[in-house]
Amino acid sequence: MIPEPIKKFVNLIAQLPSIGPRQATRLAFYLVGLGKAQINELASAIDALKNLRTCKDCFFVYTSGDALCYVCSDARRHKDVIMIVEKETDLISIEKTKKFNGRYFVLGDLKKNGALDTIQKLRLNSLKIQIKNGGGTAKEIILAINPTTIGDLNAELITRELNDCAQKTTRLGRGLPTGGEIEFADEETLSAALERRS
Amino acid sequence: MIPEPIKKFVNLIAQLPSIGPRQATRLAFYLVGLGKAQINELASAIDALKNLRTCKDCFFVYTSGDALCYVCSDARRHKDVIMIVEKETDLISIEKTKKFNGRYFVLGDLKKNGALDTIQKLRLNSLKIQIKNGGGTAKEIILAINPTTIGDLNAELITRELNDCAQKTTRLGRGLPTGGEIEFADEETLSAALERRS
Repeated sequence: MIPEPIKKFVNLIAQLPSIGPRQATRLAFYLVGLGKAQINELASAIDALKNLRTCKDCFFVYTSGDALCYVCSDARRHKDVIMIVEKETDLISIEKTKKFNGRYFVLGDLKKNGALDTIQKLRLNSLKIQIKNGGGTAKEIILAINPTTIGDLNAELITRELNDCAQKTTRLGRGLPTGGEIEFADEETLSAALERRS
Repeated sequence: MIPEPIKKFVNLIAQLPSIGPRQATRLAFYLVGLGKAQINELASAIDALKNLRTCKDCFFVYTSGDALCYVCSDARRHKDVIMIVEKETDLISIEKTKKFNGRYFVLGDLKKNGALDTIQKLRLNSLKIQIKNGGGTAKEIILAINPTTIGDLNAELITRELNDCAQKTTRLGRGLPTGGEIEFADEETLSAALERRS
């Protein structure tokens, strides 16, 4: 009933995070409707993702041909101030502020069970070795982990893992978000804003 | 900051229906993480969508090589009972019931402004010509349009367009959905269920 190419597309696409089989099926028919030229364009845009590599120092992506990602290969960035992020998209959000002049370290999505997975442990080990080779201790490690219960738990775990690796370990400040309204802020946020008033 | 292949991917993907730029960015990094083999598989699954054609009779898709879609090319299906659907996915849902032995006609997503667009008018014209060439009038035209206010409005428009094309024009029956609870049914549904009791 459903043509084979659509079935195959739906099976693959529905495996991607946050896309269900229904959305995948609608997408398939939508793409068929767009026609050859646009299908080609999309297929080659996906194919081009193969050209990306993961930076061996920070695990952010970069275009193959370069030796490291654009942050790690930038000599003006402080190598001894290291911001640990969960996701590449978190890194991008921080970079957009243009207020951070250190380097990053991408840890990967943190699990909800409050334990680091094997890849995350390997990555943290790699970070420890980098810090050791770079002079013994980093000046600062910033844990840019979401300010949630799970985030707090994971931040503690990571702090313990990186014990003795940095002169200080910090987290991003908590308080009222710009544009937020005091009336609607939750208790935790208000308490943090009070404690950290400036 | 963001590598070029990711930017390009995000730009294209974010144009697809119901995918925003944030989801597209996350998808991009997810795909890079999957690695070459799976990126290849996805790119070629999308490329294979080019092999699909739109049936000249009913506008459903079919694999090129065939002359018509699998419904229109099936001699056992009644050609003079025509079900008009909005979307290919509606057709698939109806086919899964295995209770319909006529043919289909895919009209395309109905607009919310209560007017048919140019493509829909062209398609309806093509249907009129098909009906004329097939013997003058169809036995029945079933409007499988969603039972919503907009759907009702559009069904009226289509009925007017197809005036004199069929011995009767019907819509799908309304009433309580199987598994539904009377307590939670809305008034319109309950009224319809009462009127159409059997």
